[in-house]
Amino acid sequence: MVCLVIKSGGAAALPEWKALFARLMPSLAVRDWNDPAVDPAHVDYALVWKPEPGRLAKMVNLKAILSAAVGVDHITCDPDWPKTVPLIRMGGELPAQQMEDYVLWAVFSILRDAPLWRTGQEEKVWTRQTGAARTSADMKVGVMGLGSLGAPVATRLVRAGFQVSGWARHARTLEGVTCYAGTKGLNRFLQGCDTLVCLLPETPETKGIVTYDVLAQLRKPAGLINVGRGPLVVEADLLRALNDKTLHTAVLDVFEQEPLPASSPLWAHPRVLITPHVAAEASRASRAEYVAQVIRALEQGQDVPLRYDPARGY
Amino acid sequence: MVCLVIKSGGAAALPEWKALFARLMPSLAVRDWNDPAVDPAHVDYALVWKPEPGRLAKMVNLKAILSAAVGVDHITCDPDWPKTVPLIRMGGELPAQQMEDYVLWAVFSILRDAPLWRTGQEEKVWTRQTGAARTSADMKVGVMGLGSLGAPVATRLVRAGFQVSGWARHARTLEGVTCYAGTKGLNRFLQGCDTLVCLLPETPETKGIVTYDVLAQLRKPAGLINVGRGPLVVEADLLRALNDKTLHTAVLDVFEQEPLPASSPLWAHPRVLITPHVAAEASRASRAEYVAQVIRALEQGQDVPLRYDPARGY
Repeated sequence: MVCLVIKSGGAAALPEWKALFARLMPSLAVRDWNDPAVDPAHVDYALVWKPEPGRLAKMVNLKAILSAAVGVDHITCDPDWPKTVPLIRMGGELPAQQMEDYVLWAVFSILRDAPLWRTGQEEKVWTRQTGAARTSADMKVGVMGLGSLGAPVATRLVRAGFQVSGWARHARTLEGVTCYAGTKGLNRFLQGCDTLVCLLPETPETKGIVTYDVLAQLRKPAGLINVGRGPLVVEADLLRALNDKTLHTAVLDVFEQEPLPASSPLWAHPRVLITPHVAAEASRASRAEYVAQVIRALEQGQDVPLRYDPARGY
Repeated sequence: MVCLVIKSGGAAALPEWKALFARLMPSLAVRDWNDPAVDPAHVDYALVWKPEPGRLAKMVNLKAILSAAVGVDHITCDPDWPKTVPLIRMGGELPAQQMEDYVLWAVFSILRDAPLWRTGQEEKVWTRQTGAARTSADMKVGVMGLGSLGAPVATRLVRAGFQVSGWARHARTLEGVTCYAGTKGLNRFLQGCDTLVCLLPETPETKGIVTYDVLAQLRKPAGLINVGRGPLVVEADLLRALNDKTLHTAVLDVFEQEPLPASSPLWAHPRVLITPHVAAEASRASRAEYVAQVIRALEQGQDVPLRYDPARGY
């Protein structure tokens, strides 16, 4: 019997996972990550979010590691993770659709300066901006990272009426999107953007990529949306840029430390919108469906997409 | 010399208006609404927002009244307004683009339950919703009013990825939008909607059209966006619906009384987003351009669009 252990959503989520897989793949034995009755050597697949370092290495017969999220940095940060075992990123349409919706909410919030409305409401003061609002047709949104989430987000922004550019490690082609590539293309990309959407994977190369100097290149009033990973943005630089108005607005879903500590000055910043890492969170139903599909393909010796590539780091 | 008096933006705005018309229509004499040197009988055109009752009636040789806003209720509420003089609503592409952007911001805020994020940030608490977020493809947005703003808003919502229906007094056809008409079509329209966008003009027929019973017909969790005029929505009913969860979220740009009094319970409601009547506010430059175009057409004896029709009330 094929055995899947799960560490995603905690023990409370296990009954839901079991019910879902019972319907999708009745032959699968679904076990809790912390079930003492499970022999690590008998685990075939592990569906995980932030596994404790060293635990995966003990599962010596693992056929694949399935990330419960689109990113895999929460697994590869374990120095002992079994690097010869295929590591598969979460896929499916739902995370991309949710990410698109979130980024659209964030971009429209920046476009219309929604944090100012929030302050007015808090203070019960009717304050109208002076000057006409910018329109979406006038705003250039730059998407950093054109992968399984970044590419559909960029395309959706075009459909929603924005000017859109994109940046990736290697040259890409996306309809309606002006694409830039590599270190050489970065400055030109940034200088043409009003709002930067950070949707890169976290790798040794991308960590800390968004510095004060990067933010200073954006057109003013500049906006930043971070929906990739917290460590992509240097938080001290972000605060400096916000405070000296180099950056006008930030919409942040991910942070260097999560949950964001109550002591962070970001919480109370009047030009920051904070959300608790919720941009793309697919339902368990949609993730179970994707996982069942992947396990079925692997069991039949087929190739699967979204496989981690150590050379790229994602 | 053709004379235009202006009451829009107060005395402080007059230099800007004068500079704009000096460029657009040098032959036009632009005067302040309160300039004592202006003989009312010599006024040809009046560009106004909330003119004092009785004042327009004294301008006995008026060729047209130009509303500084898309709605004209702020003029027609004067019982003595000169009803034989053409009354022209504000037009141009900019107010529609701004309205589209605002409604998209509001719809995405409702879709993703942004007020919950606001509360979390206020309290510096990292609270994640349980259950996956709805996606735009699952949400049906209903637009009440398919006029010079409602129609482009409905079309834009389709492009942005929502299911869209529309309701108007008379049958309309809009690509991608399921249209309903008249009293007979209202209930079917409402029962299919998750979020209702109110973009009707204020007329004796539409005043108070959004009651508790109307809100109770929407699918739950229900959302309301009022960007038409405050009196379209019965505020007491709105509060009742919010408080008993008949309505989950309201995004309000217009109110029965503006500015919204500090005593209004709407300000502090955790599921209400308030903005100070800013959804569509075209720049003076764009409005001056539109007004110059209208005056030029009227002076040449041509017909102009967006003319008030007493039978419709807008």
